[in-house]
This record gives sequence, C-alpha cells and structure tokens, in this order.
Amino acid sequence: MDELKQRILQDGIIIDNRILKIDNFLNQQIDTTLINHVGQEFARLFQDVPVDRIVTIESSGIAVAYAVSLAMNNRPVVFARKKKSLLTSGEQYTASIYSYTKEEAYTASIGKSYLHAGESILIIDDFLASGAAAVGLAEIAAQAGCSVAGIGIVVEKTFQGGRQTLESKGLRVESLARIARFENNAPVFAD
Amino acid sequence: MDELKQRILQDGIIIDNRILKIDNFLNQQIDTTLINHVGQEFARLFQDVPVDRIVTIESSGIAVAYAVSLAMNNRPVVFARKKKSLLTSGEQYTASIYSYTKEEAYTASIGKSYLHAGESILIIDDFLASGAAAVGLAEIAAQAGCSVAGIGIVVEKTFQGGRQTLESKGLRVESLARIARFENNAPVFAD
Repeated sequence: MDELKQRILQDGIIIDNRILKIDNFLNQQIDTTLINHVGQEFARLFQDVPVDRIVTIESSGIAVAYAVSLAMNNRPVVFARKKKSLLTSGEQYTASIYSYTKEEAYTASIGKSYLHAGESILIIDDFLASGAAAVGLAEIAAQAGCSVAGIGIVVEKTFQGGRQTLESKGLRVESLARIARFENNAPVFAD
Repeated sequence: MDELKQRILQDGIIIDNRILKIDNFLNQQIDTTLINHVGQEFARLFQDVPVDRIVTIESSGIAVAYAVSLAMNNRPVVFARKKKSLLTSGEQYTASIYSYTKEEAYTASIGKSYLHAGESILIIDDFLASGAAAVGLAEIAAQAGCSVAGIGIVVEKTFQGGRQTLESKGLRVESLARIARFENNAPVFAD
C-alpha cells in the first residue's frame, strides 16, 4: 500500500536499527484519513472470505479495527484486553503473549460473551514481528470455536519470523507494508 | 442521546450498584454504527467552537475519538498513554491521574510533538465520574499551551462530582447520557 509506505518513510522513527515507531499517524496520533484507507485496503484483501467479527488487541489495534469495520458494513469489533480489570465480569478466554517489543509477557483476554462458536473472525493488528500477539488471538478464537478468516497486519517486519509462524498454523496473513530490514535507521521494504 | 440511553438500558451491566459496564458496545465489543452516531452528536454539540485536534486516553476513548474525527473532517486524534513504554521516545507532557473505578493512580503521557501551542483541542472520554482523567488531559493541554474547546463525555455519572470539578475550572462539559443514580442495579437517567 503505497500511501502507507510513503508515510512510514516520511514519519516513522527507527530506534536502534530495530524498532519502528509510527506514533505520528497510528500509535499516539491517529491520522483517520490514512487509517480509513488502511481499513478499506483490508476489506478489499479479505473480500473473498466471510467475516462475522473483527478481533484486535488494545490499544493500537483499535483504530485500525474500527476502520476495517467501517469498510465491512460495520461488522462488530472486539478487542482483547492486555490487563485483567478488577471489574472484569464473567468468564474470559485468555492467552499468554510475550511482547518482543516491550520485553514482557501479558495475558490477553476477551469476555466469552463476545465471541460465538461457528463464526468467522478477522484478526487485525498494527505490527507483525514474532507473531506472538496474532497467535494468542488465534488461540482465543479457537477456544471460542471460531474460525480465523485471516490476519491483517499494518506493518510486517519480515525478518522476525511472524509470518512463518502463522502460516505454519494454516493462517493467512495479509500485510500492507513489509519491512525487510532497517539500514542506517531507515526501513527497506520487502517488495 | 436516546439511541445511546436505550442501548445502556438494554446492554449495560451494573456491578454493586456502583459501576456501569458497557463492554457490549464500547469497552470490549465496539458497535461502530452506534459509536459513529456518538461521534456525529459530539460534532453537532461542539460545532460552535474551533477544534484543531481531538485528545483522548487509551484504550476506551480511542474508538469514540475516531468517530468524532470522522464527523469533524478527519481532524487528527491524539491519545494519551497510561503507561510509559520502554520505547517512549522524546519528551512527554504528563499528568498523574487517580482512577476511581480501578482504584489506582497512573501517569498519562503525550509526546510533545503531538500537541501544538495555540491550538484548540476537544477532549473526549468514555466516562465521567470524578473527572480525574479529564482534568489530567486538560493539564496536559495547558502544559502544551493549547486551549480546551470542551470536554465530550459518552456517559456521565452525575453523582460523582466530575462536572462540578471541570466547570469550576472553566471547562465546558457535554455528555450524551447522564446517570443520576443506580437503583436495583439499573441506571436512572438525570433527564
């Protein structure tokens, strides 16, 4: 998606030749014009599969999932919590996820009321690195008896193995910008 | 906003006659049709004031702020982080906020690049109870030299003093559903 790649080149900040921050248009400031286009692109890529519900994880997945919903006839969005609230009520599906970026593990949870057996869900996330978050969401989907229509990723870092991990589980991955490596603190796209 | 109040009556869950959970349409599952209408209503209520930027706080404010942006010519959204990331880069505006609901304090932060002196910001949040989160965001706005056009709240609990706190600081508050009290684990609206 050229508009997205241009924006990454223009506004992305790379730390230690390792981590890309896109706080300027998604992860702290949200450019809703661009993110609407991101949502439309995911709707186009997944138009061949049924999607009953869009599943993501707080916080940075929420804006993208919202935009996907707009482009998919307002399908409901469900976002996993990263931290159990004191107020969490009812039973939860959970998965343990290790965040490579933040170097810590957390438990993702979704209330059982919000996923329904037999439904087809589309998983959306901002980044794909090792794939741990997407694997965790797919585990939650499996617990709920849902099938996974696919995984839509805004920015994939191809050198961290996430796609291989997901595809080896039979999961389809579509990403809008694929970064092969960082050179001199700039991204080099894979295609 | 009748559509919202009906939905609260239908799907809100009240815990201990004290806390309202609207996980069914905002705080875990997001009904983007309803939240788009919420965004349109805020745009209508604040049409008389300039809004350069929409400011909220993760996670549950993000979807609402996104919808407000859609209804306000895609004005940029900026969301405060509740937890400092290991990766936080650059200087931050910060405010300490005590969450009545979660019974813990946290530091909200926004990178200095994302707020600009002289701008008029609209603060958006899902709930107004004691007003601590909105006060914190207004403090951050003041640090940045921004003026606050107003504070848009989805659900106000009128019995927890938040409005008085904000209005005493000269801040304008508009809320879409005002709950005067809970009775037999059901909300009683103020109007």
